[in-house]
Amino acid sequence: MSLKATKILKNTPSIIASAAVGGKMENEGPMGDYFDKINDDPYFSAETFEQGECQIQKQAVLHALNKAQLQSEDIDVLFGGDLLNQCTGTTYGVRDFLMPFLGLYGACSTMAEGLLMSSVFVDGGYADIAMAVTSSHFCTAERQYRFPLNYGGQRTPTSQWTATAGGALVVSACKNPPYVRACTIGKIVDMGVKDANNMGAAMAPAAFSTISEFFADTGMSPDDFDFIVTGDLGKVGSRILCELFDREGIDIRDRHKDCGLMIYDFDEQDIHAGGSGCGCAGSMLCGYFIPQLRAGAIRNILFAATGALMSPTINQQGESIPSISHLLWISHESGND
Amino acid sequence: MSLKATKILKNTPSIIASAAVGGKMENEGPMGDYFDKINDDPYFSAETFEQGECQIQKQAVLHALNKAQLQSEDIDVLFGGDLLNQCTGTTYGVRDFLMPFLGLYGACSTMAEGLLMSSVFVDGGYADIAMAVTSSHFCTAERQYRFPLNYGGQRTPTSQWTATAGGALVVSACKNPPYVRACTIGKIVDMGVKDANNMGAAMAPAAFSTISEFFADTGMSPDDFDFIVTGDLGKVGSRILCELFDREGIDIRDRHKDCGLMIYDFDEQDIHAGGSGCGCAGSMLCGYFIPQLRAGAIRNILFAATGALMSPTINQQGESIPSISHLLWISHESGND
Repeated sequence: MSLKATKILKNTPSIIASAAVGGKMENEGPMGDYFDKINDDPYFSAETFEQGECQIQKQAVLHALNKAQLQSEDIDVLFGGDLLNQCTGTTYGVRDFLMPFLGLYGACSTMAEGLLMSSVFVDGGYADIAMAVTSSHFCTAERQYRFPLNYGGQRTPTSQWTATAGGALVVSACKNPPYVRACTIGKIVDMGVKDANNMGAAMAPAAFSTISEFFADTGMSPDDFDFIVTGDLGKVGSRILCELFDREGIDIRDRHKDCGLMIYDFDEQDIHAGGSGCGCAGSMLCGYFIPQLRAGAIRNILFAATGALMSPTINQQGESIPSISHLLWISHESGND
Repeated sequence: MSLKATKILKNTPSIIASAAVGGKMENEGPMGDYFDKINDDPYFSAETFEQGECQIQKQAVLHALNKAQLQSEDIDVLFGGDLLNQCTGTTYGVRDFLMPFLGLYGACSTMAEGLLMSSVFVDGGYADIAMAVTSSHFCTAERQYRFPLNYGGQRTPTSQWTATAGGALVVSACKNPPYVRACTIGKIVDMGVKDANNMGAAMAPAAFSTISEFFADTGMSPDDFDFIVTGDLGKVGSRILCELFDREGIDIRDRHKDCGLMIYDFDEQDIHAGGSGCGCAGSMLCGYFIPQLRAGAIRNILFAATGALMSPTINQQGESIPSISHLLWISHESGND
């Protein structure tokens, strides 16, 4: 079965372990109990926020390895990336593991891209055991993309709160749920949004494009899934996504979940339009959805993390914000029985 | 045959087309005739250097598609990345093509990483036709990594000249030379070099690590190849690489070629330690080596592009520069006859 953007994975690789790491705010949110490791110190005992973000990745990899009862030398390939320029959260976070490493750049879609790559490499026999990791950090992201925190800038109502979080997962050919059944590689979508404080609006059309493509390629529909999970569209982007599906006569509201709407408490935490960052979708997938899918409490999800491929430099030159979304069908059943 | 870092590609995907794009200095160098498209204007008729770099990628993709007699909708997946923060040369350069897109970050190793991914996706049947693209631009790289050009900073003797160049290639299961026979995924290597003006020294140990791993995994030796091609080690890094092999009792000097030593004329052009940038290895592979391998003038090469995963932010915080190198064995023969 050869399809343009959607690949059916014949050998349905298994996600054998996953781990989520978070900060203080993530712990205080409604999903706090689903993190494997919480760090109250935003510096993670390091000297700078950037070095702190490296610790998120290191912790996520170590916890995932530990759960899988594996050593770093058992990993055939590690896929990783993050929001920092030159993906330094990843590079410096994982360099000590000496794993064969392939760096990704997909902004907040990185967890989906990493899982997609891991699944393809294992499905095709190019790796026995593959791993994916990602992270984000509120303080590093604000400094790099908007203003240094010391500036004390006011955040707009449409702005999202970059999660100080990360996730790592291990994929192998082993036959334990959950399984990755298919994946859809996203296309870059740019609807002309130029507001660096409104990532949800920029990313929603990318999620719509990829999820629609999956349905068109496979003939499946929202009814086939417990949840359609998006990465971090937040309030603004989630509303746009639902409205885009409305136009096609499809109501996804009763099964749409957005990691950016799940991770924080809108009443108690000052997070404006919701959570964001690679670590938002990364930690919700690794900390919550994968364990639920493993246990069978959830049977089938589409996981479509979204990334705003935003560059402050080129944005200040007047350019709009292109976005992308990659999708995975993750299931409690392998479908090969 | 399952090996840790080296993957033997059973179906030996074919590189059916490639194209190289360069600027004025690249045209004036000894390899000028091997570029498919030259742009004398460093702005590429755009308003900023960054927008100019996007044009390199667009031109490279268009020329490669044209040579392969394909349309953008024929491409199942495009792998791309570059040196700019958030890989904007790629993102903004290719967004109009609407191809399924997977973003990479491998610094100057990107062409090797993209060819590796393209080869694995085609070899495993996850894509009928895959594409890889990358670029670099002297003016965008200097501004981002060191100083804006207007500053008029003095360059050190060990510094390299980022090529204003790019390359794109098309991989398919079709049976025409050259073929990708195997690939080795690199590990992050960090020997503690902290000098942002001496990338060659930072990258040489990564090239040594990956090339050595390929020889160990396959039992092959330098004698099996016409050339061992490194990405952009320049004078300093090339010398270190040869010395590292000397310690193992292996002399690679008579078959080592470095793209950073090939692309410019050291006597006539003021390029200090040599060329660098994703576009250096990218254009030399796509413009020179692939056509020579297709014609049979060269029979076998190892192509090991190297990337310095350097971040100005974290480098200024006192950190060293980790590096990586990915390797491809590219051959005139498929080995499947």
